[in-house]
Amino acid sequence: VRLGPDGTSLIILDQTALPDRVEERTLTTVEEIEEAIRSLRVRGAPLIGIAAALGVAAITRRAAAATEDASLPLAERVTDWCRRLSGARPTGANLAWAMARLERAVREREAAPPGELAELVAAEARAIHEEDRAMCRRIGEYALELLPDARPFEILTHCNAGALATGGIGTALAPVYLAHEAGRAVHVFADETRPLLQGSRLTAWELRRSGVEVTVLTDGMAGALMASSRVPDAVLVGADRIAANGDVANKVGTYGLAVLAAHHGVPFYVLAPSTTVDLDTPRGEDIPIELRDPSEVTEGFGRTTAPRDVDVWSPAFDVTPAALVGAIVTERGIHRPPYGDTLREAMLGAGGTTGVTTGEPRGRDP
Amino acid sequence: VRLGPDGTSLIILDQTALPDRVEERTLTTVEEIEEAIRSLRVRGAPLIGIAAALGVAAITRRAAAATEDASLPLAERVTDWCRRLSGARPTGANLAWAMARLERAVREREAAPPGELAELVAAEARAIHEEDRAMCRRIGEYALELLPDARPFEILTHCNAGALATGGIGTALAPVYLAHEAGRAVHVFADETRPLLQGSRLTAWELRRSGVEVTVLTDGMAGALMASSRVPDAVLVGADRIAANGDVANKVGTYGLAVLAAHHGVPFYVLAPSTTVDLDTPRGEDIPIELRDPSEVTEGFGRTTAPRDVDVWSPAFDVTPAALVGAIVTERGIHRPPYGDTLREAMLGAGGTTGVTTGEPRGRDP
Repeated sequence: VRLGPDGTSLIILDQTALPDRVEERTLTTVEEIEEAIRSLRVRGAPLIGIAAALGVAAITRRAAAATEDASLPLAERVTDWCRRLSGARPTGANLAWAMARLERAVREREAAPPGELAELVAAEARAIHEEDRAMCRRIGEYALELLPDARPFEILTHCNAGALATGGIGTALAPVYLAHEAGRAVHVFADETRPLLQGSRLTAWELRRSGVEVTVLTDGMAGALMASSRVPDAVLVGADRIAANGDVANKVGTYGLAVLAAHHGVPFYVLAPSTTVDLDTPRGEDIPIELRDPSEVTEGFGRTTAPRDVDVWSPAFDVTPAALVGAIVTERGIHRPPYGDTLREAMLGAGGTTGVTTGEPRGRDP
Repeated sequence: VRLGPDGTSLIILDQTALPDRVEERTLTTVEEIEEAIRSLRVRGAPLIGIAAALGVAAITRRAAAATEDASLPLAERVTDWCRRLSGARPTGANLAWAMARLERAVREREAAPPGELAELVAAEARAIHEEDRAMCRRIGEYALELLPDARPFEILTHCNAGALATGGIGTALAPVYLAHEAGRAVHVFADETRPLLQGSRLTAWELRRSGVEVTVLTDGMAGALMASSRVPDAVLVGADRIAANGDVANKVGTYGLAVLAAHHGVPFYVLAPSTTVDLDTPRGEDIPIELRDPSEVTEGFGRTTAPRDVDVWSPAFDVTPAALVGAIVTERGIHRPPYGDTLREAMLGAGGTTGVTTGEPRGRDP
């Protein structure tokens, strides 16, 4: 995602068109931005937050330039836009976090002239984007410490927690990209991730474009893979929200993978920026889980794949209990159980070091 | 499946067209029958055996009537057809079993005149079909003993082990149909079962047609279901081959369900006719697992769902180790661990009683 040339529009890569077509869309209203988030044209918890922030920056600039429409003070309108977009998808923590951050920035300077306010919002949105890009690399560097360093490694991932889901090189895929950049052999097994196929459509697409070897399998084949001779070195996934106790909401299907990984003794790691950690949500059961429209399951491919009007249950996310998570990796370090303590310390502590990993990440020649 | 009006053709319901269209096809050559099996127009381990047997009966009658083409004795030609069809799909036990049974019947009477031989084959094929129909009901009656009898019950199933997969009321779905016939409330959660969606296309279709309540979910949602307040009373699945030690090959994704069921303490039962038990295959690792074409994963719905030429791993089946199987139910009874003993006794013992369940099944008012 990026701002248009004059900074008054948001340009997105429409992820619903991939891998068939690489299509950009230019959005100029809050309605268009909301639609793009709800329909998953823009998706991935960190990227949604970035896109909404840049989007609010674009429409704020546009509003600041349009002198005629000033029935409400601009600061109030920005607040309205932030709250509206904040509710576009309920599960991910980063969207609400980014919108609250813009709101806070504007509230502190609400008397500023429109042009100044618009620049303030734009600067905050750019900062959110830049910080995310940096967080991705740090996550990758820390995560490499958890992976074999003396030989090629293979990982299994679910959904898309790559470059397409973030402002940088991804979260779950960050160590993969860093290893690949360093000339190491690395191989990714990508669950296709029904219903919307973010694994086969997006993860496979971005890895291939970067020259990383990838093999697609259906979600139900992960068990057979772990029982085979090619058991992966680790399961790496992103997260949409991490509760204070370490329970992790992520794309539906993640929980089943975590159970399989535990059964096979395969390490299961969650990689996400600290903006995904929500200390105000005590446990996984407190995370609201978005239910998606049945048509994504029954007609997702331009063909009817179930009887008309059949009952469908389609949660977009599931919750993996902390007990199944071997480590949570953020840009602040490698966090280990008990997460109630280590996450709180890492999120609230000065400098962001954890009780477990301190100092600079030791990523291998990124 | 059934024979055409003059007994010289095989009529099948083309399951690849469901649930959109109910289309029958008439097959008259061994090539057509083989294609129908390979392409899954006819699928379900028991039904494949029945279809192949009726198919050989049809082409044998046709050959017996066609006097000109007699370069080979008819008995030898029947043997050739049986061996060819036997190899159409490698994993399921019932196809090879049915073809071996026809071969044996013909070999015992190979000198008989063509017309007589054709009637013999037809009688044997009809017997295979009728026996399967009866086995389905017995499986259902035994399986009901494992399910709650004082209240409505809910089960989770994978793929299609229903009427469409057998000559009767199915295997995994047999207790569901018997309970429904008896006026009991019963509800089925059906995994859609990627890549070919036998759950959403076939299981949901046949249950709705019979008035049984069904809810479709994607394969990756089964974990969320088990962690929810609607945890099913049992997971019921069919089987393509059961090894002598009780390891079960079934549609890929079954193994992951078995691990989830164990994790949540949900009973996991395998329901299949005794023709699926293969005492000549000692363990699961000895079962050949068919690999399917990548296009079933990447272009299965008339739309490209992965980058062109991406690497795909697509085993059609996986193996669930006996340790995760709470019971195997055949028409001979409820078999419990250690399966190495109980299955052998049930399959080889006179009358087919097992060490565990004896006598008539006590199914509830079927």
